[in-house]
Amino acid sequence: MSGLLFVIGLGPGPAHWLTPEASAALEQIEDILGYGPYVARVPRRQGLRFHASDNGVELGRASAALALAAQGRCVGVVSGGDPGVFAMAAAVVEAIELGPPEWRALDVRVLPGVSAMQAAAARLGAPLGGDFCAISLSDNLKPWSLIERRLIAACDGDFVMAIYNPASKARPQQIYDAFAVLRARRDGETPVAFARAVGRPYEAMCLTTLEKADPGFADMSTLVIVGASTTRYVARPKVLPYMLTPRSYR
Amino acid sequence: MSGLLFVIGLGPGPAHWLTPEASAALEQIEDILGYGPYVARVPRRQGLRFHASDNGVELGRASAALALAAQGRCVGVVSGGDPGVFAMAAAVVEAIELGPPEWRALDVRVLPGVSAMQAAAARLGAPLGGDFCAISLSDNLKPWSLIERRLIAACDGDFVMAIYNPASKARPQQIYDAFAVLRARRDGETPVAFARAVGRPYEAMCLTTLEKADPGFADMSTLVIVGASTTRYVARPKVLPYMLTPRSYR
Repeated sequence: MSGLLFVIGLGPGPAHWLTPEASAALEQIEDILGYGPYVARVPRRQGLRFHASDNGVELGRASAALALAAQGRCVGVVSGGDPGVFAMAAAVVEAIELGPPEWRALDVRVLPGVSAMQAAAARLGAPLGGDFCAISLSDNLKPWSLIERRLIAACDGDFVMAIYNPASKARPQQIYDAFAVLRARRDGETPVAFARAVGRPYEAMCLTTLEKADPGFADMSTLVIVGASTTRYVARPKVLPYMLTPRSYR
Repeated sequence: MSGLLFVIGLGPGPAHWLTPEASAALEQIEDILGYGPYVARVPRRQGLRFHASDNGVELGRASAALALAAQGRCVGVVSGGDPGVFAMAAAVVEAIELGPPEWRALDVRVLPGVSAMQAAAARLGAPLGGDFCAISLSDNLKPWSLIERRLIAACDGDFVMAIYNPASKARPQQIYDAFAVLRARRDGETPVAFARAVGRPYEAMCLTTLEKADPGFADMSTLVIVGASTTRYVARPKVLPYMLTPRSYR
């Protein structure tokens, strides 16, 4: 089989965060598959077939991409951000595990990208400067009890938290439940940032504290950062403060 | 003050992982500061002054960069990987917090990059497909008791772990101590990967299990990934297996 499958990270949105490796792959592929809004970011061109699909059908999309590659096509599966972080890389490898044995011999290349937490952190200063964890609040793929256990463990370990998929129209409640877990365990003055659509035209930032935060600010395109005990704001004139988690404990 | 300070992520090494935003900043700056091996990656050119410094002097380097920017220079501080992940962004914001008030008005822009854990994950398939945490083992900046507490919490939460700074010549022991903590709490069959210098000429991968792992494989340029309870290997013909942490629990 001479097919080739790229699992491509598009980054958070703007072209200046797309790696040259990902750009080159987008020039080379013959088929592109992905969640509609991500596929829509890639310019149409002669010789590139578009296959947009809905959110929540990752395993089926991965299998379709692998089947095309097994036919000898040069295929790209795209994710926003980094495909390795709550995105398509895991779906592709899982589809390989479940699929026909010949898929294991396919040439599959995962191309990393800037993930939402990194774009948000860059805008905010250095909120992820110390040890941190990344948690998806979506209970479509795992039970809420496990998410709750992880939030508690993250508090026990005094990790900064980068919270992905905090809410969607179908799941408005999780972020409220998560904040209830956190408020019972972390100081009310802990800095909390809601970073919506960083790098895109409707980018919005809300810097607040755990006590004052309105979980309702979070939507599908929001990344929430909850500080550790050492996280603090550093005031600046006229603009939002920096959010800092220092590396050192002094 | 018209000075400008870019905090630039160079990515893990190869040019194809350097973002266009970072490339453009490297063309624009008049002074470059950073740890010697990172500064050495940037081509010399007319009008660019090089200021390489040792590892472990991040706060001093950040202050020097801010002082140059306050003089009106266009300055770049470079980090390998992402400056927001165990790198210079936190040092710069901390130096601003500690420095003269006028530094708070400087134009400081953090430019994100691909971090080592993302490059390693891309090579391995999808080891970070679920919730994960990033922990630095260096006790230069924080007490070992806190690192141990975080390793234990990460086990309690069944997080995948991306372990940065696992060992150096001055700190050969921490990775052994960390593995002792993990082995007491996680199944011996848990997949463990040592990813050394991913993307660079001396890249090396060691895929093993928690029980069989030799912590001595880790050095300063190694990123260690320790799986969660759901992490597994997916065998492939002739090449290393994929390392997979599925997003779904079924």
